[in-house]
Amino acid sequence: MTQRRIDVGVLGATGMVGQQFLNQLAGHPWFVPAWLAASERSGGRRYADATTWRLDTPMADGLADQVVEPAVPGRGPRLVFSALDAKVAGEIEQAFAEAGHIVVSNARNHRLDPMVPLLVPEVNPDHLALVARQHGRWPGAIVTNPNCSTVVLTMALAALRGFDLRACLVVTMQAVSGAGYPGVPSFDALGNVIPFIAGEEEKIEIESRKILGSVAEEGVALHGMRVSAHANRVPVVDGHTEAVSIAIGVPATREDLRAAFDAFTGEPQSLRLPSAPLQPLLYLDAPNRPQPRLDAGRERGMTVTVGRLRPCGVLDWRFVTLGHNTVRGAAGAAVLNAELMVAKGMVE
Amino acid sequence: MTQRRIDVGVLGATGMVGQQFLNQLAGHPWFVPAWLAASERSGGRRYADATTWRLDTPMADGLADQVVEPAVPGRGPRLVFSALDAKVAGEIEQAFAEAGHIVVSNARNHRLDPMVPLLVPEVNPDHLALVARQHGRWPGAIVTNPNCSTVVLTMALAALRGFDLRACLVVTMQAVSGAGYPGVPSFDALGNVIPFIAGEEEKIEIESRKILGSVAEEGVALHGMRVSAHANRVPVVDGHTEAVSIAIGVPATREDLRAAFDAFTGEPQSLRLPSAPLQPLLYLDAPNRPQPRLDAGRERGMTVTVGRLRPCGVLDWRFVTLGHNTVRGAAGAAVLNAELMVAKGMVE
Amino acid sequence: MTQRRIDVGVLGATGMVGQQFLNQLAGHPWFVPAWLAASERSGGRRYADATTWRLDTPMADGLADQVVEPAVPGRGPRLVFSALDAKVAGEIEQAFAEAGHIVVSNARNHRLDPMVPLLVPEVNPDHLALVARQHGRWPGAIVTNPNCSTVVLTMALAALRGFDLRACLVVTMQAVSGAGYPGVPSFDALGNVIPFIAGEEEKIEIESRKILGSVAEEGVALHGMRVSAHANRVPVVDGHTEAVSIAIGVPATREDLRAAFDAFTGEPQSLRLPSAPLQPLLYLDAPNRPQPRLDAGRERGMTVTVGRLRPCGVLDWRFVTLGHNTVRGAAGAAVLNAELMVAKGMVE
Amino acid sequence: MTQRRIDVGVLGATGMVGQQFLNQLAGHPWFVPAWLAASERSGGRRYADATTWRLDTPMADGLADQVVEPAVPGRGPRLVFSALDAKVAGEIEQAFAEAGHIVVSNARNHRLDPMVPLLVPEVNPDHLALVARQHGRWPGAIVTNPNCSTVVLTMALAALRGFDLRACLVVTMQAVSGAGYPGVPSFDALGNVIPFIAGEEEKIEIESRKILGSVAEEGVALHGMRVSAHANRVPVVDGHTEAVSIAIGVPATREDLRAAFDAFTGEPQSLRLPSAPLQPLLYLDAPNRPQPRLDAGRERGMTVTVGRLRPCGVLDWRFVTLGHNTVRGAAGAAVLNAELMVAKGMVE
Repeated sequence: MTQRRIDVGVLGATGMVGQQFLNQLAGHPWFVPAWLAASERSGGRRYADATTWRLDTPMADGLADQVVEPAVPGRGPRLVFSALDAKVAGEIEQAFAEAGHIVVSNARNHRLDPMVPLLVPEVNPDHLALVARQHGRWPGAIVTNPNCSTVVLTMALAALRGFDLRACLVVTMQAVSGAGYPGVPSFDALGNVIPFIAGEEEKIEIESRKILGSVAEEGVALHGMRVSAHANRVPVVDGHTEAVSIAIGVPATREDLRAAFDAFTGEPQSLRLPSAPLQPLLYLDAPNRPQPRLDAGRERGMTVTVGRLRPCGVLDWRFVTLGHNTVRGAAGAAVLNAELMVAKGMVE
Repeated sequence: MTQRRIDVGVLGATGMVGQQFLNQLAGHPWFVPAWLAASERSGGRRYADATTWRLDTPMADGLADQVVEPAVPGRGPRLVFSALDAKVAGEIEQAFAEAGHIVVSNARNHRLDPMVPLLVPEVNPDHLALVARQHGRWPGAIVTNPNCSTVVLTMALAALRGFDLRACLVVTMQAVSGAGYPGVPSFDALGNVIPFIAGEEEKIEIESRKILGSVAEEGVALHGMRVSAHANRVPVVDGHTEAVSIAIGVPATREDLRAAFDAFTGEPQSLRLPSAPLQPLLYLDAPNRPQPRLDAGRERGMTVTVGRLRPCGVLDWRFVTLGHNTVRGAAGAAVLNAELMVAKGMVE
Repeated sequence: MTQRRIDVGVLGATGMVGQQFLNQLAGHPWFVPAWLAASERSGGRRYADATTWRLDTPMADGLADQVVEPAVPGRGPRLVFSALDAKVAGEIEQAFAEAGHIVVSNARNHRLDPMVPLLVPEVNPDHLALVARQHGRWPGAIVTNPNCSTVVLTMALAALRGFDLRACLVVTMQAVSGAGYPGVPSFDALGNVIPFIAGEEEKIEIESRKILGSVAEEGVALHGMRVSAHANRVPVVDGHTEAVSIAIGVPATREDLRAAFDAFTGEPQSLRLPSAPLQPLLYLDAPNRPQPRLDAGRERGMTVTVGRLRPCGVLDWRFVTLGHNTVRGAAGAAVLNAELMVAKGMVE
Repeated sequence: MTQRRIDVGVLGATGMVGQQFLNQLAGHPWFVPAWLAASERSGGRRYADATTWRLDTPMADGLADQVVEPAVPGRGPRLVFSALDAKVAGEIEQAFAEAGHIVVSNARNHRLDPMVPLLVPEVNPDHLALVARQHGRWPGAIVTNPNCSTVVLTMALAALRGFDLRACLVVTMQAVSGAGYPGVPSFDALGNVIPFIAGEEEKIEIESRKILGSVAEEGVALHGMRVSAHANRVPVVDGHTEAVSIAIGVPATREDLRAAFDAFTGEPQSLRLPSAPLQPLLYLDAPNRPQPRLDAGRERGMTVTVGRLRPCGVLDWRFVTLGHNTVRGAAGAAVLNAELMVAKGMVE
């Protein structure tokens, strides 16, 4: 495992997602956030002046005085994290890839490109094979992490892959931090449920099938399971809770499935990646768990929790799963993706 | 329609549910809450002294000075509403029926008795035929309303009965007022989702099939659809939101289903019962509705709202439905049940 | 009292405050919202198309199809309510006054003009005498209602005017609806207290002294009491709660003060104005009241509640007061102002 | 500084406060929670079986299997922390002191005993001199920490002691975790403010004067300042926010006071006690801070934050202060108290 220090950049460093990236990189044993890039407007200012820090952990030492630079492709380190808003991420990320950067992105724009890995390191590390195929397009690379709800769902589903997943019906109860800043007005969120999040259901339905799919000639072949997602916003700060029912093709007992959840592990664990949780999936036996306020933060937000596994009267089995949407579902996901690439020698 | 005034009693008048009954009866054109019955401990006290009023509408005029009486069968009016806790409701309600009372109950104890109507007046008014069959047991009668989540669900499903309901998967996001008082500790509820409510899923799964079932020789024959419910508690005060997916046996377009929602009406509407909403089911076109804070109170909490009808990738169709859990799902439901019985001449 | 119907206009009809005005005017016995005025952009559109209705009461019948018109001075009825944002209200309201309109405004821009009444009808109806003095400036008039926290505070203080108010220290805990829409991001508001609201403390400190002041030669002479306000935002939807300590110059017992709260009434009550609550100030004896969720809606939101009157160890007395910020503190306040003007023959 | 390991006991180990103590002691460099004591009922059971863990940090390793023992004086280590409920703490703590234990208590029962230190290590470490005087009563000792709101307030006030504190008016906005478990029903807390907490105002008013008082012949002489507290419960999980106005006898500029906040430090810092924050009082310059969700957790919840220092129109100065009520205001306070006693050689 590499021990050297690797300079990294953060595109969109002054936004809320950028802050989450910098929080995730604070004290990181490998990555040094050496290049904070943002729009022209912020360029040249101290980071502390260019942003309004909104997290409940203070800014890392030294960060306040770093100078924000304009996001110009070709400048900055080879490895850049993209915390860009989807409105601009598509073109900017492409320009960075064309300039030779390895772009590890949290934005949705390139996720469905068949040649771009939609990576969850415990689930589909083999999808990194797609990176080599991008070289016909650009000297760099783009690797993405999924939508925040999708990461959580696919971690739980991946544990059950051996049972021939046929269908998955998921109802999400999503935290407001998933909507960015300013995001959902408090007048809408307080004491309320909003049974709609624009574009979210479509993302969950397609991204989950790509993640669980396999690398084929022309990119990733989607997994064949049917997926239906109902997305809801609830007055929770951090942590997406998901009620899941599945149909499977292989007969199984509760013990079989439970054992599969317990046994789930992946390359981040065997490679001991810095951000990898010891236990990527944690089954909780208490009848009323997982709960976002109590469980979203396990192993610094990188563990996905599962509970309430029981038969379903309509499909075959049902359970609840939960994960930290801005850590495992966003910045932590991207950093783990980059760690996996480093460990595989893909970042020279 | 009867215009005379009918004295009614309320069993458990000092509890939270009792308060909701008295709130529902305030200014009622037919029913006079003449008899407030509670445990021995409260007997003989002024109502205002025997209870801590917790509702956001003030106590009705005159109520404060009414004297609470012990809940002795045979005393009090013929028609009594039961706001009793399930711990004691079973025996007490039976004793009242044996003493000749018509007990209109919100408690769960007798709901699954095949000779007891589990009544939603818009959905299964014909189940009142069971009352006559109770006369072999006792001179009085017991009529129940469903669990709060179930009322909402079955109102929406009843509109689609013509399409041969085969399966229903519902995920509820339930308000804290559904847990009574003191109910859920705020330490658990604030900024959190609790993915479990004891006994709730089983109630929804069986009660919905009884309500949509048909009266047969030996009581109600359950409807044949499969039902799976995931129950969650969310930090909302009033209003249960439900994400529903259904499988149907009759091919249908979105317009067919939408028209069925729009056309839904029932005996409470044709009989113009005092508590009946003009529109028992209201479809909302806005993409992010219904929402509990905005929609639970429609038509004084008696209208169930529906929205987001769209195809489901796993079953056939999906939608969101919402209702006021302490009104349409509890006290208002019971009062409407009693109104229907009066209108049908069952309360002499 | 006039019985005829008076056409009124609403400036800024499509915004959140405009919706609250229209909600307040729904079914009003005197006022007909005949003219819905908004910016050029909205002009010519159906009201339902020009706005996103965000209230928990449905739009009044007929409102959806009314056509929004551009806010051009001289058009529309003589009496116009201003629901305009402070960014534009100053100039537009002046232009309407110059064109002869009577502008009853909720905006802050003209509140501190010495010739403009800052009116709370129960507290300072005599300040309407200022209107006549505006005629040197413009043929119309501008009358304002105070900031939402200030209305509540001054209603409670006005009851104690006879005790020689010397100082008032108030700490507000304000609902998010007071911040308009989108207002406070839910990421900031959920499970949090924000101990700052821009400009709020200054408004409370000066406006309360103007309201309790007296009409003098050169406009209103401020009341001499010292006022200090700490403003906080709390995760409440509607209802501002205020913890108040006061110093008074006239020795008093608790019974004296309590009697003053109970006796408080005003011209809206004696004139039986349509929006006037029977009891403008309601003292609640329960030790833990008033509470926003339970008490903000009393008498359709027009009653201010008070409780916990007790000696203060630093000043003389302390108590809690509470009012509905978007009703008594905004649209309801303005409508009551207009009703008072009509009753006094100031709107011909 | 001692390096040896000191066995400690926890009285009331299975309750919510007991959990907070054990959480605070997890990984403690000095203290080993060797003795978990609870009521007879829990005695003999595994800790994991005797309690329902409610914190968002998992139980420390090994804790689950420790056996709970009955709280019998004379057994267990010399140093015991009391997490007992006030209903029973008075007698039990006395019995432990009589049996020779050093009882470091979070309960309120002995706080106002003139011979018992009401200790905030940064504020009044000299009050530990009282312990020697307890020896006429019992061979052990009782040392208490203040009410959660009072700790926060006195930390901020202590910084300003040099300016001759004359009066303090404080309005608290307190988190629900301060009410224990089950504590405040969610039906009361959600979207609401409860302007009353039984006994809280009295505790703040008297305890603050004892803490800032001085050791005299007959125990602690109360500080002479007048204190008035308004206590409110708000829908926040952790962190008490306090709006404070003070009168001082020494003329000061804002810079003087600000410098005093910045300079504040104490024995825990000079002794480098394990639980001591580097900065016990942190002034935040942002105009809208401190906020409980963002700032309560600073330095693991042991730092009290201050902000918004500005002149007060009624008293002299006003500011906002905030602290973590279950850490700095309870278990963390007690552990810091014990650390100070160890460092001073009072625990042999």
